[in-house]
Amino acid sequence: MEKKLVYMFSEGDATMRNVLGGKGSNLAEMTKLGLPVPQGFVVSTDACNDYYADSETMSANLMDQVKANMLQLEGITKKSFENEENALLVSVRSGARASMPGMMDTILNLGLNDKVAAVMAIDNARLAYDSYRRLIQMYGDVVKNVDRDHFEKDIDTLKVKFNKDTEHDFTPDELLELVNLHKDTYLRLVKEPFPQDPFVQLTSAIESVFKSWNNTRAKYYRRMNNIPDEWGTAVTVQEMVFGNRNDNCATGVAFSRNPATGEDELYGEFLYNAQGEDVVAGTHTPLPISELAKSMPAQYKQFLDVSKQLEKHYHDMQDMEFTIDDHKLYILQTRAGKRTAQAAVKIANDLVKEGVIDKQEALDSLDVRIIDGLLHPQFDTDVVAKLEPIATGLPASPGAATGLIAFTAQKAVEYFDQGKPVILVRLETSPEDIEGMHISEGILTARGGMTSHAAVVARGMGKSCIVGSSDLIIRDNVMIVNNVEYHEGDQISIDGGTGFVYAGRIETQSATISEDFNNLLEWADEKAELKVYTNADSSEEIQVALEFGAQGVGLVRTEHMFFEADRIRAVREMILSTTPLQREIALRKILPTQREDFEKIFRTMKDKSVTVRYLDPPLHEFMPTTTQDIEELAEIMNMSSAEIRDVIRSLHEFNPMMGHRGCRLAISYPEIALMQTRALIEAAINVSNELDGITIKPEIMIPLVGDVKEFTYLASRIRKLADELIAEANISLEYMVGTMIELPRACLLATDIAKEVDFISFGTNDLTQMTYGFSRDDAAIFLKNYYDIGIYENDPFQTLDTVGVGSLIKMAVEKARAVKPNIKIGVCGEHGGDPQSINFFKQLHMDYVSCSPYRVPIARIALATTTK
Amino acid sequence: MEKKLVYMFSEGDATMRNVLGGKGSNLAEMTKLGLPVPQGFVVSTDACNDYYADSETMSANLMDQVKANMLQLEGITKKSFENEENALLVSVRSGARASMPGMMDTILNLGLNDKVAAVMAIDNARLAYDSYRRLIQMYGDVVKNVDRDHFEKDIDTLKVKFNKDTEHDFTPDELLELVNLHKDTYLRLVKEPFPQDPFVQLTSAIESVFKSWNNTRAKYYRRMNNIPDEWGTAVTVQEMVFGNRNDNCATGVAFSRNPATGEDELYGEFLYNAQGEDVVAGTHTPLPISELAKSMPAQYKQFLDVSKQLEKHYHDMQDMEFTIDDHKLYILQTRAGKRTAQAAVKIANDLVKEGVIDKQEALDSLDVRIIDGLLHPQFDTDVVAKLEPIATGLPASPGAATGLIAFTAQKAVEYFDQGKPVILVRLETSPEDIEGMHISEGILTARGGMTSHAAVVARGMGKSCIVGSSDLIIRDNVMIVNNVEYHEGDQISIDGGTGFVYAGRIETQSATISEDFNNLLEWADEKAELKVYTNADSSEEIQVALEFGAQGVGLVRTEHMFFEADRIRAVREMILSTTPLQREIALRKILPTQREDFEKIFRTMKDKSVTVRYLDPPLHEFMPTTTQDIEELAEIMNMSSAEIRDVIRSLHEFNPMMGHRGCRLAISYPEIALMQTRALIEAAINVSNELDGITIKPEIMIPLVGDVKEFTYLASRIRKLADELIAEANISLEYMVGTMIELPRACLLATDIAKEVDFISFGTNDLTQMTYGFSRDDAAIFLKNYYDIGIYENDPFQTLDTVGVGSLIKMAVEKARAVKPNIKIGVCGEHGGDPQSINFFKQLHMDYVSCSPYRVPIARIALATTTK
Repeated sequence: MEKKLVYMFSEGDATMRNVLGGKGSNLAEMTKLGLPVPQGFVVSTDACNDYYADSETMSANLMDQVKANMLQLEGITKKSFENEENALLVSVRSGARASMPGMMDTILNLGLNDKVAAVMAIDNARLAYDSYRRLIQMYGDVVKNVDRDHFEKDIDTLKVKFNKDTEHDFTPDELLELVNLHKDTYLRLVKEPFPQDPFVQLTSAIESVFKSWNNTRAKYYRRMNNIPDEWGTAVTVQEMVFGNRNDNCATGVAFSRNPATGEDELYGEFLYNAQGEDVVAGTHTPLPISELAKSMPAQYKQFLDVSKQLEKHYHDMQDMEFTIDDHKLYILQTRAGKRTAQAAVKIANDLVKEGVIDKQEALDSLDVRIIDGLLHPQFDTDVVAKLEPIATGLPASPGAATGLIAFTAQKAVEYFDQGKPVILVRLETSPEDIEGMHISEGILTARGGMTSHAAVVARGMGKSCIVGSSDLIIRDNVMIVNNVEYHEGDQISIDGGTGFVYAGRIETQSATISEDFNNLLEWADEKAELKVYTNADSSEEIQVALEFGAQGVGLVRTEHMFFEADRIRAVREMILSTTPLQREIALRKILPTQREDFEKIFRTMKDKSVTVRYLDPPLHEFMPTTTQDIEELAEIMNMSSAEIRDVIRSLHEFNPMMGHRGCRLAISYPEIALMQTRALIEAAINVSNELDGITIKPEIMIPLVGDVKEFTYLASRIRKLADELIAEANISLEYMVGTMIELPRACLLATDIAKEVDFISFGTNDLTQMTYGFSRDDAAIFLKNYYDIGIYENDPFQTLDTVGVGSLIKMAVEKARAVKPNIKIGVCGEHGGDPQSINFFKQLHMDYVSCSPYRVPIARIALATTTK
Repeated sequence: MEKKLVYMFSEGDATMRNVLGGKGSNLAEMTKLGLPVPQGFVVSTDACNDYYADSETMSANLMDQVKANMLQLEGITKKSFENEENALLVSVRSGARASMPGMMDTILNLGLNDKVAAVMAIDNARLAYDSYRRLIQMYGDVVKNVDRDHFEKDIDTLKVKFNKDTEHDFTPDELLELVNLHKDTYLRLVKEPFPQDPFVQLTSAIESVFKSWNNTRAKYYRRMNNIPDEWGTAVTVQEMVFGNRNDNCATGVAFSRNPATGEDELYGEFLYNAQGEDVVAGTHTPLPISELAKSMPAQYKQFLDVSKQLEKHYHDMQDMEFTIDDHKLYILQTRAGKRTAQAAVKIANDLVKEGVIDKQEALDSLDVRIIDGLLHPQFDTDVVAKLEPIATGLPASPGAATGLIAFTAQKAVEYFDQGKPVILVRLETSPEDIEGMHISEGILTARGGMTSHAAVVARGMGKSCIVGSSDLIIRDNVMIVNNVEYHEGDQISIDGGTGFVYAGRIETQSATISEDFNNLLEWADEKAELKVYTNADSSEEIQVALEFGAQGVGLVRTEHMFFEADRIRAVREMILSTTPLQREIALRKILPTQREDFEKIFRTMKDKSVTVRYLDPPLHEFMPTTTQDIEELAEIMNMSSAEIRDVIRSLHEFNPMMGHRGCRLAISYPEIALMQTRALIEAAINVSNELDGITIKPEIMIPLVGDVKEFTYLASRIRKLADELIAEANISLEYMVGTMIELPRACLLATDIAKEVDFISFGTNDLTQMTYGFSRDDAAIFLKNYYDIGIYENDPFQTLDTVGVGSLIKMAVEKARAVKPNIKIGVCGEHGGDPQSINFFKQLHMDYVSCSPYRVPIARIALATTTK
């Protein structure tokens, strides 16, 4: 038997979403519920996939089944698709497994031709010609790629000729003239007449919907929303009902609750005597749905009931399309309604209160990517909707920001000191820019990927950030975009959630955590099996994370403790040292401030887990780069500039990411690790003494271990010193020494490593880099192309590559647990804050995920969400 | 029962090498054979390892067993170790599992003290005091680290006082005075008197041997010879016999065959009336062993017989120590003799001919690292032995070379054109230096590791090369070593096999492949299950490899086909192109020469396998770096220098190794891969037509694939074009499209990849880099320290890391074979020429290993060698 590719609505239900698409399966479900749904059939997603697998051809099997189903539909409707008498007209619409609103194409009134129109016109000439002219326009646009402007021009011509404001005022004769004009336009541009055979129309329309699956905006939408290319789209073919038959008709869209606020009220718009496209096209101003209550109270009441029924049935707020055809209500579509973060939270709460859903369903109903908006300032959506971005980049850290352009960290600080808000605009950022980043409202870079320095640091700070905006040319303190120059001090605005850059100032609205949201977070915590820690480098960041519900700190990066202005000199002194003694003297200068930093962190975290990663970046990052800075350093160090340059040169690395960093640095200079140990343990001792009865439990994390011997070499020295300090202090203090697993080799040899370490934290950023063999900073340039041609569907630095990198992590977790069943295992890479990746970590039964402070609520929700 | 740590000779045999060490197990074996061996016992390697495991303490159990065994030895020898009457004196010598000649310490005459000496002196005062003064000196040196110079000064003082040329002319009384002087010196420097208790002497001596396992030269030797740190050393305690008792005594060392030429003759040296150390010390000129035939014919005959018996017994040429004590011959040690490559080859052949060993044993007897010397020019060992190197570096590519220093490739070419031999001295080399490298005798760099650009290219060319010589400071066309300046045009000599750099000119002797060597290679091919291919980029290199027995080309790197002077301009034009069309026009200029290159290769290889890797390096490598070159290019391209610099800047990568290279480049610019396909397939067609009846079978290798979609994207386009070209040519031509697996992710996802590819070749260099997360160019700086402190024992870029990288390879091979059992699998990384790594590839039953031309014979031998 041939593979089944087409289904009548009556053959399906909501469980068949993968085959019938969202629209098709919901129409089938509503049919089952006995709701007033115009009947039809669905060409399945399998058919779409076969179409692509078979070099884009419509198979004979598919066409046979379409014909057979059309025959059935003729039976149900008692109309005919091929004869002009009592003609069956249909709509052809796309419907993927996941909702992709507006991304693909729709054609209405299919089946109309000269003869059918003429017969229809006998009864209702306006309906016949209005529908026909719409078909020619939509078909020309969707199937033949004729720019809609050509058809708009026809309309304009006749508007002038007939002296009418809009085509809706046209008489039937005038509409017929428009039909003829459209047909001429079609012939002129397509080089063939508008097809009169309804089956030719249908076949082409179905194929066009298939093709629209791979149009640029659909591909882009899929990538943004992690929708696999392989899903394909279904095509719904449905009997037309007419909102444009007469004045007893209407058509509209409505949400079962207010999608902006979440209020429990039918919310939507409609037009009298119109077709659905008019409502969304913006050419006519639709009326609020409440108007309908007055003009057609019975139909309004019926619709309201359907709306509540569907909400209860689907356990979610619905977005519905309806048409009233000569007093009779039809439901043309229902789906879960898109909503703002605020609305999502309120609706989830309300539905639980109303007993419609349980807490788990409430959590599952949240789109965590949207929830993120609750945690950051936002532009007013209405204001932004009217603006054209001047450039786009990667949305590296969400939130809206507005301020003056500063091209250097110094300039940013200067503006800040004058009380002016700043957007720091850089080719790329480096650790030297930290202070400038800290005081800026937002950060915009021309280079780098989602896990570049700017991106990682900005997320940590919860600061709006756009990176890798290749639209920007930055040189000599000018930013050039599309040949327009922007200078230091000019106003710009950026939205780190969308990656859009705007010229000028846009007001922002600050973030709020509502009681409703808090409820949800608490429900989430009840369900979650993993803890949520935070990656945070300072007590200020940790404070934010605690407020967001972090249960520990999974990653304190200590490099910032070396970069700050008051320490960098001692760090450079250390680097320029030629003996361990010199090095130790320099390090001793850093010790007190570093100890204070740790004390502040412990005071904030108290008895909660704090994992401190020892110095990680290669030393050259700490050396000055400008001539002036080099000369200053030479003066201070009593060396020549040439000597300083020699040292800088000697520190040069071809591939710093794969260079002398992480534990390799500590193995070369154990003094550094020992200074950090002293600072950390002394801080723990001091704060333990200070906060009576509270047990500080520091966790020391050694980065970039690739061989257990690297770990044991350092850990034995660290433990020896720590034990001595604890003994001297005559205090009982427990600490752990563990490692960050971020190299493929560490995963492969996790058995050996697990035997020696007290805990393991996966550094998934570097692990992803090494497993793929590409650097997050350099990959942006070719990854964009990879998405376009479909090699990758999403950024592996954002969403964990479960089959590759994930299989290494799984291997490591299994090996580690085999030798040490209770070993503490977590994730502190960027993926620790990504819902899809968190899902994977959940399956591995890790102990915690650690993410930047502003991702903590997202992670809490994600951990409690049912695996989909 | 306590763990057994000490064994009498009579308790062991040759199979117990791991426990007793080489020396101990051979002494036990000779005891078993009934040969005249002074008896004794062996402190096992376990004891040494326990010593280190137990923070360097001599356990009570060990001391108990030493005492018990000493008691037994007293019984066997009927002498006493603690009483002065009939005193038992012993030697204490190191003996590791693998021979490490001269690396560890030895003490003779142990047990002597004032009383014992006095009693011995009654009988033979010269023997007593000569032995005693030697003990004090050796004990002081080995156990107490007293510099031998102090004792030499004592001797010099008395030589002057007694007016004697050497201490061997001292009378017994004078020797006694020397004993007393040595005792004073000992007391002065050690701050305690020379120990009189024989057991104190013994315990300290054993401990010193243990300690000597970890002295710097032993550690260095182990690393050079891939001897694991965990093996530990055994300690042999053996009854002293005396070659210095009287004139009827002699002591010496001899090889059962000539170790330099392999001739079948007893070859060695001896001294009358002396102890073993005198023979090796160089203070006395020993006599050739043939002298002994005249003076002591019976003992000589007996020794010759023992020598033949041991050869037959051990199936190998022996290196023996003997002593004749008052007419009686004793064998003190036997072991396989070190030999030159020439000798090794001749001996292996002769022993097969004599029926002593079979072909497999002959192959197993070869030390492939030494055999390498046969394939490259060498310095005269006698000349070099007398020279002090001015610097050392990593021995990147073997062979001796001598010539004028050139600091740039241009200068090298200039000298070459004047007929002067050149050593190219660079901070590091880059692809731009290729021509200069090609015409140089040898290459010396200050930076880089064993698989840096210079190293890889030099090995490919079979050219002497030393890299990463951190002793060198190179700036402003001066090389400074230890404050001595060397200028362009100065003579230097380098030995790429040892890593030694010499000032001045040293004559080289050219390489020869003897008939004997050819025999062995042919025997090897009979045994080998894997084929040996070569990595070679030009028909010239391939010719060399064919002469060395390569059966195919496993890797043609095509980047050189873009770098050559006549093409680089077109390549730059391509890079500066802004449209695919411009790019194609530029590529079309490269096509004809690239096609010619491939034609030459096919003409050379005929129907043998040729695997061509498509362009791999990032594009910035092809751009000019000097201002002058940039200006020239700007002029040619009709662009401004600033624009060229903008392009160069835009190509900059933070980590080029992990950047836009390999297949990523071809995916961005499919035109490049298609041009290469056209050049390759057209060349194959042309040469097929030219060489009637010969089937050319090109293999296209796509590098750096991390996801099967990368491969399929390119392969489908490549196959389409190739098929078109073949169809047009109306010829039957088969080709393969495969991939280089060099990323961890490709190993993890090998199932998917194997389904699509025609073959797999492991690029182990990059795979090692990514798995360890360090770059071969940057790692040298910390790897040195890693060896010193014992984190790694050898360079993972030289010898495959079987537990880490190897486990990924194994996984990939298994996954690939599971879905495509007959898929062709090989290795084309540097490890393909490393015997230890080859061993691993053998176990995975790969189809071939591919290595640089000059490693082909080594690989052939290694493949046939029994796994040890």
